[in-house]
Amino acid sequence: MAEKISVAVLGATGSVGQRFIQLLQGHPWFAVNELVASDRSSGQRYADVTDWRVSDSIPESARDMPVKGLSDPLESTIVFSSLPGGIALEVENRLAGEGKSVFTNASDNRMVPDVPLMIPEVNPDHASLINTQRKNRGWDKGLIVANPNCSTIHLILALKPIWDAFGIELAMTTTLQAVSGAGYPGVPSLDMIDNIVPYIGGEEEKIESETLKIFGSLNGGEISPAPVKVSAQCTRVPVRDGHTESVSLKLGKQASIDEVIDAFATFSGRPQELGLPSAPAHPVVVRSQADRPQPVLDRDAENGMASIVGRVRECPIFDVKFMVLGHNTIRGAAGASILNAELLVKEGYIS
Amino acid sequence: MAEKISVAVLGATGSVGQRFIQLLQGHPWFAVNELVASDRSSGQRYADVTDWRVSDSIPESARDMPVKGLSDPLESTIVFSSLPGGIALEVENRLAGEGKSVFTNASDNRMVPDVPLMIPEVNPDHASLINTQRKNRGWDKGLIVANPNCSTIHLILALKPIWDAFGIELAMTTTLQAVSGAGYPGVPSLDMIDNIVPYIGGEEEKIESETLKIFGSLNGGEISPAPVKVSAQCTRVPVRDGHTESVSLKLGKQASIDEVIDAFATFSGRPQELGLPSAPAHPVVVRSQADRPQPVLDRDAENGMASIVGRVRECPIFDVKFMVLGHNTIRGAAGASILNAELLVKEGYIS
Amino acid sequence: MAEKISVAVLGATGSVGQRFIQLLQGHPWFAVNELVASDRSSGQRYADVTDWRVSDSIPESARDMPVKGLSDPLESTIVFSSLPGGIALEVENRLAGEGKSVFTNASDNRMVPDVPLMIPEVNPDHASLINTQRKNRGWDKGLIVANPNCSTIHLILALKPIWDAFGIELAMTTTLQAVSGAGYPGVPSLDMIDNIVPYIGGEEEKIESETLKIFGSLNGGEISPAPVKVSAQCTRVPVRDGHTESVSLKLGKQASIDEVIDAFATFSGRPQELGLPSAPAHPVVVRSQADRPQPVLDRDAENGMASIVGRVRECPIFDVKFMVLGHNTIRGAAGASILNAELLVKEGYIS
Amino acid sequence: MAEKISVAVLGATGSVGQRFIQLLQGHPWFAVNELVASDRSSGQRYADVTDWRVSDSIPESARDMPVKGLSDPLESTIVFSSLPGGIALEVENRLAGEGKSVFTNASDNRMVPDVPLMIPEVNPDHASLINTQRKNRGWDKGLIVANPNCSTIHLILALKPIWDAFGIELAMTTTLQAVSGAGYPGVPSLDMIDNIVPYIGGEEEKIESETLKIFGSLNGGEISPAPVKVSAQCTRVPVRDGHTESVSLKLGKQASIDEVIDAFATFSGRPQELGLPSAPAHPVVVRSQADRPQPVLDRDAENGMASIVGRVRECPIFDVKFMVLGHNTIRGAAGASILNAELLVKEGYIS
Repeated sequence: MAEKISVAVLGATGSVGQRFIQLLQGHPWFAVNELVASDRSSGQRYADVTDWRVSDSIPESARDMPVKGLSDPLESTIVFSSLPGGIALEVENRLAGEGKSVFTNASDNRMVPDVPLMIPEVNPDHASLINTQRKNRGWDKGLIVANPNCSTIHLILALKPIWDAFGIELAMTTTLQAVSGAGYPGVPSLDMIDNIVPYIGGEEEKIESETLKIFGSLNGGEISPAPVKVSAQCTRVPVRDGHTESVSLKLGKQASIDEVIDAFATFSGRPQELGLPSAPAHPVVVRSQADRPQPVLDRDAENGMASIVGRVRECPIFDVKFMVLGHNTIRGAAGASILNAELLVKEGYIS
Repeated sequence: MAEKISVAVLGATGSVGQRFIQLLQGHPWFAVNELVASDRSSGQRYADVTDWRVSDSIPESARDMPVKGLSDPLESTIVFSSLPGGIALEVENRLAGEGKSVFTNASDNRMVPDVPLMIPEVNPDHASLINTQRKNRGWDKGLIVANPNCSTIHLILALKPIWDAFGIELAMTTTLQAVSGAGYPGVPSLDMIDNIVPYIGGEEEKIESETLKIFGSLNGGEISPAPVKVSAQCTRVPVRDGHTESVSLKLGKQASIDEVIDAFATFSGRPQELGLPSAPAHPVVVRSQADRPQPVLDRDAENGMASIVGRVRECPIFDVKFMVLGHNTIRGAAGASILNAELLVKEGYIS
Repeated sequence: MAEKISVAVLGATGSVGQRFIQLLQGHPWFAVNELVASDRSSGQRYADVTDWRVSDSIPESARDMPVKGLSDPLESTIVFSSLPGGIALEVENRLAGEGKSVFTNASDNRMVPDVPLMIPEVNPDHASLINTQRKNRGWDKGLIVANPNCSTIHLILALKPIWDAFGIELAMTTTLQAVSGAGYPGVPSLDMIDNIVPYIGGEEEKIESETLKIFGSLNGGEISPAPVKVSAQCTRVPVRDGHTESVSLKLGKQASIDEVIDAFATFSGRPQELGLPSAPAHPVVVRSQADRPQPVLDRDAENGMASIVGRVRECPIFDVKFMVLGHNTIRGAAGASILNAELLVKEGYIS
Repeated sequence: MAEKISVAVLGATGSVGQRFIQLLQGHPWFAVNELVASDRSSGQRYADVTDWRVSDSIPESARDMPVKGLSDPLESTIVFSSLPGGIALEVENRLAGEGKSVFTNASDNRMVPDVPLMIPEVNPDHASLINTQRKNRGWDKGLIVANPNCSTIHLILALKPIWDAFGIELAMTTTLQAVSGAGYPGVPSLDMIDNIVPYIGGEEEKIESETLKIFGSLNGGEISPAPVKVSAQCTRVPVRDGHTESVSLKLGKQASIDEVIDAFATFSGRPQELGLPSAPAHPVVVRSQADRPQPVLDRDAENGMASIVGRVRECPIFDVKFMVLGHNTIRGAAGASILNAELLVKEGYIS
């Protein structure tokens, strides 16, 4: 890649926007060119309008960049969007219509039929839905690709090796989700000191529906939902980063616990095959200690780009149960979009 | 009751022992007469050997009481035991053999076939197993009654109304358990700041096995385990008191969500019928708010003696799912033993 | 008191407003008669507009009460105000002008020269400033009395016995303040998980200035600030309720540590003398354990109405240093206003 | 340096020992050669006896190393000790007597008159006390150098620029210390959920005495304590890593706040001059935001090797007050020892 591809970050002052900027620092293919926030920030210095919280200080490359407003024209080839649900749909569609390649972390576009909902290790073949998308919308080069919700991503990434090896009929999960998933200011501390909140609005529905689309099969430009049933109960716990999920699975065919562990440990996907810059060496990492994975110890494994599983054992009701943990704002958000973009660049969808 | 029944607390300096003392203050039937700890504390003033942590200061009635050692002879009629597993079995058996009525919170005796594992609202009929117990062991008045593990109690108490009304075939649960369940010093703070631990040794097995005994049927002096399958995944979260559990159930027969909620809300058991002093007016409390129950808001409902359910809704895989929360050292431990004792006094087993 | 005095709570849906309602339940002199919130809540049922968070459920007496708006006319004799700073001044002045006795927890009126800034155990004589206030403003029966900021109250209550016995020239303090002081939603959990925030806007200035007024002497209708210097550094820590403060004092005259402890332990003030309903038996409680006071163990001592001191020892720079802790929304806010009202009723200022 | 200097880590399985191993990975001058723990671990594989908790997994270089026992003979030139107080003194003295260069993080040797208590940026000249030490003890090449207590280090590092520029007569501090300072398991979670503990045994005395030695002047082989008075109050707060300290100073001569900030910001010491491998570019970092420094945001600045100051402002009692924060197990412990070793290598004390 002779010259880096120019990149805009939408929602650049928010939590996920900050992660995008942090993760894109020194990226071998992408160069952050435009930082986009609300129109009232337009023209201001990024450091002056941003309460930077993902590390001790704003990367120098971003500090003095003038912020663009959402209605300002953009020049970049790729757009990473962390806009809030509700306003994302219109902006993202407009930008893709102008020929940008939009990789969105927002929920608005996820379940739109001609938008691929992608995890590169799981359903890279869904990329070809972009052909349908372009045809449907009359676009010649723009595109929109969504990544799933943070808790869905780590569930699915952990399910994929099992899905491939044994099939999955039923998946029951309870999540213990980190507060960074709600952004800043997000969850009040009075809800998180000596407490948990057994509810995250809309989260269970997202897990239950997104899973079917991601595991769905692409036939003639349409995705048929996968024949799997998912039931999720979602809670918020006093953890900064890292969603933990208990999972119980009814498999499609018999498998021993050792075979399941082996499927996890040896799993590798398209990003590993292509050597994408942000691809973890091991997308699924298995911990053998009885009390792992734990957020503080495991969320940063593989630079936050892996799902860490542990406690793989038999389920008295279904077949197998285990715990999975993953970094919710890296692999669960910004890193997911970036890996999607890397895949589509490599696969030739972006020019 | 003309005169109060004398009571000894075993393990009186520990966390659950302290709860026993706190809950028994001003009890209308029981008077704490003896505080028992390790032999090396024998003869010392209770306040001098106790790091009191369940309220701001030790009740005056207990402060100056001389502590007895485990091998000292006891005089009390009733013994509440919060001894650690491992040493409990022998001590409790010896005391019951001497004619004491032992109510144990320890795990040692729970699965012993002729020891009732009781929750007064759930299986008060199991009290009659004491007849078998006495016959087996040649005791004329001593007895041992165990209460279940803290996380089992709140699961079962919440299941009972459903069990009675619709039957339960399968129960899947993930727990988010408070640190007080591990006593003091218990869980290190480095494990509980910005973290959760997805493992509690032996806990899942306890839930999965105790449930079958409690719901089991008593026939001819033996308990046949109930035909229900339980699968549990247990985690420790940064909460002081109050275990939260996500539950999904496959019912024995069809029920609407409204019928399930109605079963919860109208549930009442033998302790309520008998008007036992520690009985909650409502053993199962239903919260209608979307984000309840929460530990800080709900654990003290009904003085910590109830199980609080919320988020009752359909399960895409089974029939119904919900959250349940309860105070783990009150209804989940000391309060459970006390209520068992009250039941057995009222039912005439103690004289 | 034949009939209870009618009471209105301003800011009734907020955190401190909820505490007022909770603390006034069953009050022997006062009856909550009116709940006042923003005008847009006017006419609605209290339970429908309130996210109740100070206990498991709204007291029945308040649940169905229709909320009044800030501009609705009020009938009550006494008004407890927990309005936010900024809007409090005008509303409180208007209501006092209409003849109400206003007890405010807001900051607006605290440093107004003719408003007593009172802690009943500390400066009950400042009540007579009301005469000046009424003369200045042409009021015949209305009045405004303010209580200090939450962190100031516990500092001053602890200083008072020392002030009386030995004098205080310099007071240096660092506070570790609970999140409930910032209301709900208040402090974001991302600021309070694995973190402290070494800054609370305006708090240090409040401690440094309010102290001088409270310890000031009232001469001819004016308060001369006390000749003491105070320096405060304020931090926010992950604690729900209970401000802890480290204090170092240069005394006016020599005192041994035992004399200081004795001054704390034997301290009693006007509320204790008058037997006011909300007066703690011991306004200053001394803990002898090396690691006390602690928020979870000590904040509820004396029903949250006392300041708990501990670790009283020599200061290598000044004379004495110690730790003080107190409940910030009870004695530090709602309870402080209520005790002020009780004092003024008893002293004959309210009719 | 043609060949790396061989290094032994004492207390290698503990928290600080783990940090030593982590920080020494890839060190340009030092190679970890021996891992030493209790005699009962002797001969076992490091990974088999270590509950590794400072990152997601043990560095490969250490994993399979056989652990030596404390009484096994050692070969390394340099010994980093994180032994517990009490056993450290004898072991460290013995090893130095055998010719090793011992850099100790334990408290035992700190106040021993002929042991330099060093922070390389603060009192590098104290290194020459080693000549006295060797003469006193008849050693020809062994040596012992101690680093201060974790909370002392960050206090002193922040004071040094002020000390040099304006002098310091009085220093008052209150600390908010992280739990990692107490090792693992260390502080119970029941003490750290919704709580702070206003006491750390021995900590205040350490700060108050160590400061005088470090700022002391070395004359004829003896250190005269510095003429400064220090008063400390120490608390434990629910933070994993990073001690925060409020500081108020009476200076030796007048200085404006801008001059103080300038002294902080431009400070540089001997390690920076010598370009030592672990030296931070800026040993004191100044934050200009009103609410900084904060543990989660600032503890890792300069790889955890700096002290971060903020909120520099006038003190109504003394002259200047500010907050300082630093990583307690990096610059406050293992990193401090390593930097001491680097200095002494460069200054020619180790051969």
